[in-house]
Amino acid sequence: MKLYTFDNGDGVKRVGVELSGFPGLIRDVRDFGLPYRDMTDLIRHITPLEKERISDPEAALDGRPLRLSSVRVCSPIPHPEQDIICLGVNYAAHADESAQFDRKAFLLDRKKATYFSKRAYQTSGPDDLIPSYPELVTSLDYEAELAVIIGRDCKNVCERDAAACIFGYTVLNDVSARNLQTEHNQWYFGKSLDGFTPMGPCIVTEDEIPYPPALSISSTVNGELRQNSNTNYLLHSISEIIAELSQGMTLLAGTIIATGTPAGVGMGFDPPKFLKSGDVVTCEIEKIGRLTNMVK
Amino acid sequence: MKLYTFDNGDGVKRVGVELSGFPGLIRDVRDFGLPYRDMTDLIRHITPLEKERISDPEAALDGRPLRLSSVRVCSPIPHPEQDIICLGVNYAAHADESAQFDRKAFLLDRKKATYFSKRAYQTSGPDDLIPSYPELVTSLDYEAELAVIIGRDCKNVCERDAAACIFGYTVLNDVSARNLQTEHNQWYFGKSLDGFTPMGPCIVTEDEIPYPPALSISSTVNGELRQNSNTNYLLHSISEIIAELSQGMTLLAGTIIATGTPAGVGMGFDPPKFLKSGDVVTCEIEKIGRLTNMVK
Repeated sequence: MKLYTFDNGDGVKRVGVELSGFPGLIRDVRDFGLPYRDMTDLIRHITPLEKERISDPEAALDGRPLRLSSVRVCSPIPHPEQDIICLGVNYAAHADESAQFDRKAFLLDRKKATYFSKRAYQTSGPDDLIPSYPELVTSLDYEAELAVIIGRDCKNVCERDAAACIFGYTVLNDVSARNLQTEHNQWYFGKSLDGFTPMGPCIVTEDEIPYPPALSISSTVNGELRQNSNTNYLLHSISEIIAELSQGMTLLAGTIIATGTPAGVGMGFDPPKFLKSGDVVTCEIEKIGRLTNMVK
Repeated sequence: MKLYTFDNGDGVKRVGVELSGFPGLIRDVRDFGLPYRDMTDLIRHITPLEKERISDPEAALDGRPLRLSSVRVCSPIPHPEQDIICLGVNYAAHADESAQFDRKAFLLDRKKATYFSKRAYQTSGPDDLIPSYPELVTSLDYEAELAVIIGRDCKNVCERDAAACIFGYTVLNDVSARNLQTEHNQWYFGKSLDGFTPMGPCIVTEDEIPYPPALSISSTVNGELRQNSNTNYLLHSISEIIAELSQGMTLLAGTIIATGTPAGVGMGFDPPKFLKSGDVVTCEIEKIGRLTNMVK
């Protein structure tokens, strides 16, 4: 099923589920008796029976569904409870283009996964603007990524059991200020500016996507195709990532892991094609949806 | 004043204040009518009048104070609401020793601050054990650091106003797995294992320490002096850090910024002196206190 966070015009963010068999129609999960205050709360506590109840095609027949097109779709997790864990250079062709752009900052050992984090006390939703920080950022870039949402607290998970830890997937644009990312030695600051984490439009639960996900992933800027790959080409698979991280770190339910971006980001072109005010970026992943944001 | 998080034997963590003029004696801040559920809540909402009330020497005369020595002192912020922001190589002599240990990982541009983050869904308190991860970590290291606690939400703060954003200070041991930190290209994973963030013993509020802080900072391992410097020698000052980060990132009240460690960490010796099971590490900062943890 597809889960949304939406605002029906009253400024309150609610969790909705797309009605099975009725694309474009959602209902507030509270209509089904689910008491969760937000998406993270739902991820942590939803039961298999509740999942069944809200994905039942019959459910569409009761109550008052809403049209997705008539509500404001927000980031599915507007306030992540922890920073986002990110993978760097996790597609071979993107690793090549990055090293070509800045050898010192990006020529990395690919045998080992590169993990970093991204501050996100709030994430942006579809249609929110990406701030451009003209005083601070000279090389604003986009990165379409498949984000994995962890569904249960996990520690010491082996690769074989990793899939069972996943709640679902969403699209994440890992907006990056290349100048800050490279000048400050570590990438954290250049990834963590306010408004640099558009996510959405929804979370697709893991049962809808055969594991491991092999989904086409793409991005366009002003309609021009820039990135075009498949999540099948991850250098370090989702199972490897969950197994490796959870050896030392407890991954709490609700944790967001952005699995890296394919080739075709702005710094990959010669000359680079960085974002500028007014540009419209769309990141899209098969079976999940399309995330469009304009640069302010 | 000095603020503690403590457990008086009932498994409940409470916030206490050391009584003005009576070192070693604390009282629960709720005895003074402060309704805050934990330290972050207090940091966000305490009023100047409440600060005055709990630091009043007369306060010691009422109610029932507790001896610090008879309660369990916990990390002052046991569950930070966001990951910890850290500075890398922010003392010149430590920058030198790091580059000598691993040129590729640590030879950095010192003109720009190096920011990274450290996962800490829970921090450790004084006397908690530091896990050694024998399967995963071959080079466990300590880093004594002055941690700054932000007191108000701030964005676009100039250096001149940075001091006014500070709530107080504590001691933080930025425990690091050097092998993971260097092998994985970015430092995040090697810094973020469970149990790698001992903090404490208390938060000293900013009014007790002339700004900018010039405090002796040291660490010992099994009583042997390893680090011995002064927070006066930060390459990038606290004001610079707050001003720079807040240009792009909203720093929420309760944010913890670890300002970097001086020379004398384990990897700085030849041969390196990494931590092993049974070692006792003490990090100490003048006017704040001493943080001691044994390696499991």
